[in-house]
Amino acid sequence: MEHSPASVPAALPYYVAFSQLLGLTVVAVTGAWLGLYRGGIAWESSLQFNVHPLCMVIGMIFLQGDALLVYRVFRREAKRTTKILHGLLHVFAFIIALVGLVAVFDYHKKKGYADLYSLHSWCGILVFVLYFVQWLVGFSFFLFPGASFSLRSRYRPQHIFFGATIFLFSVGTALLGLKEALLFKLGSKYSTFEPEGVLANVLGLLLVCFGVVVLYILAQADWKRPSQAEEQALSMDFKTLTEGDSPSPQ
Amino acid sequence: MEHSPASVPAALPYYVAFSQLLGLTVVAVTGAWLGLYRGGIAWESSLQFNVHPLCMVIGMIFLQGDALLVYRVFRREAKRTTKILHGLLHVFAFIIALVGLVAVFDYHKKKGYADLYSLHSWCGILVFVLYFVQWLVGFSFFLFPGASFSLRSRYRPQHIFFGATIFLFSVGTALLGLKEALLFKLGSKYSTFEPEGVLANVLGLLLVCFGVVVLYILAQADWKRPSQAEEQALSMDFKTLTEGDSPSPQ
Repeated sequence: MEHSPASVPAALPYYVAFSQLLGLTVVAVTGAWLGLYRGGIAWESSLQFNVHPLCMVIGMIFLQGDALLVYRVFRREAKRTTKILHGLLHVFAFIIALVGLVAVFDYHKKKGYADLYSLHSWCGILVFVLYFVQWLVGFSFFLFPGASFSLRSRYRPQHIFFGATIFLFSVGTALLGLKEALLFKLGSKYSTFEPEGVLANVLGLLLVCFGVVVLYILAQADWKRPSQAEEQALSMDFKTLTEGDSPSPQ
Repeated sequence: MEHSPASVPAALPYYVAFSQLLGLTVVAVTGAWLGLYRGGIAWESSLQFNVHPLCMVIGMIFLQGDALLVYRVFRREAKRTTKILHGLLHVFAFIIALVGLVAVFDYHKKKGYADLYSLHSWCGILVFVLYFVQWLVGFSFFLFPGASFSLRSRYRPQHIFFGATIFLFSVGTALLGLKEALLFKLGSKYSTFEPEGVLANVLGLLLVCFGVVVLYILAQADWKRPSQAEEQALSMDFKTLTEGDSPSPQ
């Protein structure tokens, strides 16, 4: 289905609203889990650990997911404004996640626990570094004024693919962390359907649902942000330049 | 980049070869882990549990991933042959995964363990049911002769999206299972970098890499199977019918 640049695909707002409802539910259920079964959150006590899951879920799941949706939601604003919002949301996500990482490393240090031995931690460090690299490369291609139009066009599909992949990898890493937190505390009680275990399983499924809905919105070809008049003109200029042809309507 | 129907994109064979190398490595490392640290595999003993991870990795990861790649690899064969191969690979994957599921339920029953309490098991049952439903719906739309061309065209993007999503969800579920198996057995020894823990973490990263490479191959728009002469003709007939226009070269 084709849409004029001014129109918004009919179903898109409902899917975006649903994604936000799911994302906020994920954050709320994470808070409820930590509040009800883990004693809440504080920096200067053994509750410092709990800063980690909350910050990672807000930063690496909810805000990262929302940053990916910016180009589907802001369809008529100037491209540069939308880009800056996309970049800024990722900066907020990154800073919040960094606080979450500092919390867990500091907690481990105070308790004398080993760092970076588990699959969750290996995946976590890897995805966090990839997220940072993706941001830096994205910034230098799309916001820093140096990169040419053709370079941007060639890098764009890679940026989109790796952006979605890093987001999904973040969701997977969160599931691993949740599972680790449950097994460490509940142990064999996990199998007796303890309320904490059931709530955390539900949280895991909600995380998966948020990931799938964000991916679904990104994957719909006709929900993509339409290119605007100034971009079309730029694209035509570029085409003209590279093809050595005079600009004429085809 | 455009390709004529006869040509194969230059980089595609290397990516496919790499995916196969990764997939086989994942199966081999799973086998090595079970052989070296879990006493190997048998049906009639407590080794029955080990049938579960091996079958799930072969079925729900390796074969499912390869079934998704069929349309990128077989580019010149008749569409129907390729479809049948795609459907058959999924049948093999399903049967092998079913053996893996029977193994773990039977093992639990013999040992008196509870079923379906963990996040891994919830995700596993969900993804297995979704896989079965996706196969049934795919079969009735694309192989069963009833569905019209327009119905197939409308369902195709959904089938592709949910196929890729179910595959990625399977990878995530495998990671959860791996983590569960490690924490149940190693407990606090996991943090002392036990060789089994390190090998299993490497296996986890290999699973992620296989998932990413398969997704990357699927996501490249110009690596898609070109539509063949007979499909183009059918598509034109359909276009003609729906637009009420006479078939003429444009």
